[in-house]
Amino acid sequence: MAKPFKLSVRAVILDEQGQCLLIRRSSACKNFVGQWEWPGGKVDPGEDFVAALVREVREETSLAVEISGLAGATQYEMAKANVILLCLEARRIVGEVHLSDEHDDAEWVPLAQLHQHSLTDQVRTFMLEYVQRRVSEGHE
Amino acid sequence: MAKPFKLSVRAVILDEQGQCLLIRRSSACKNFVGQWEWPGGKVDPGEDFVAALVREVREETSLAVEISGLAGATQYEMAKANVILLCLEARRIVGEVHLSDEHDDAEWVPLAQLHQHSLTDQVRTFMLEYVQRRVSEGHE
Repeated sequence: MAKPFKLSVRAVILDEQGQCLLIRRSSACKNFVGQWEWPGGKVDPGEDFVAALVREVREETSLAVEISGLAGATQYEMAKANVILLCLEARRIVGEVHLSDEHDDAEWVPLAQLHQHSLTDQVRTFMLEYVQRRVSEGHE
Repeated sequence: MAKPFKLSVRAVILDEQGQCLLIRRSSACKNFVGQWEWPGGKVDPGEDFVAALVREVREETSLAVEISGLAGATQYEMAKANVILLCLEARRIVGEVHLSDEHDDAEWVPLAQLHQHSLTDQVRTFMLEYVQRRVSEGHE
């Protein structure tokens, strides 16, 4: 039996200076502890993908965000599922960053400096390719 | 008020010869009549994205398919919504192509010949970029 495909969503929350929010996985996480990621998580069964992203961002960062466009998509394999990861660009509407216990640090990082962080293994290449596209399009 | 973001899904149904299924929009469609596309459509509220794709493919082509991976994602704007389009690679499990009245022709097309068809305007560039990636990865 093939592994099921699950949808996850992550938010590239961009500020006016072209920085995006990275958060660091804490020791409360089962894996990838200490690695940096964009906020997000699984779409629950029956949940709209935008609602899922807004919920995950609020749970993980306390920020209220709105989606502004597509950042891209990638896939990776987990123990029990094939994950399709949809990354969306987002803007903060309101709020200041307050982390849940799943993360222990947050940083607004200029896109061109993303590679200096220890990014989650499965999506590191994808994240850096996104940065390259943005920079080559003159959005940096 | 910004347009809402909606999720659509399309299937790149590949056969053993590296051909994919294209279907042509009939005069029963509101727009893009006569243009060729991959089967698929909107994810209904509360519907799983894989279930939506399997349903749309069955409704439009009578084929039963299973998802095999990610083809890519793109976005475009419609009158009332911003559409995030997730394209997934799929395999036929069983069935022969029988079209609904939304389409009036079907063709298995070698990927390298996709550009010879009049593809739907909004995703033409995306479809051809997908072909380029596949060919450069040696999957053609």
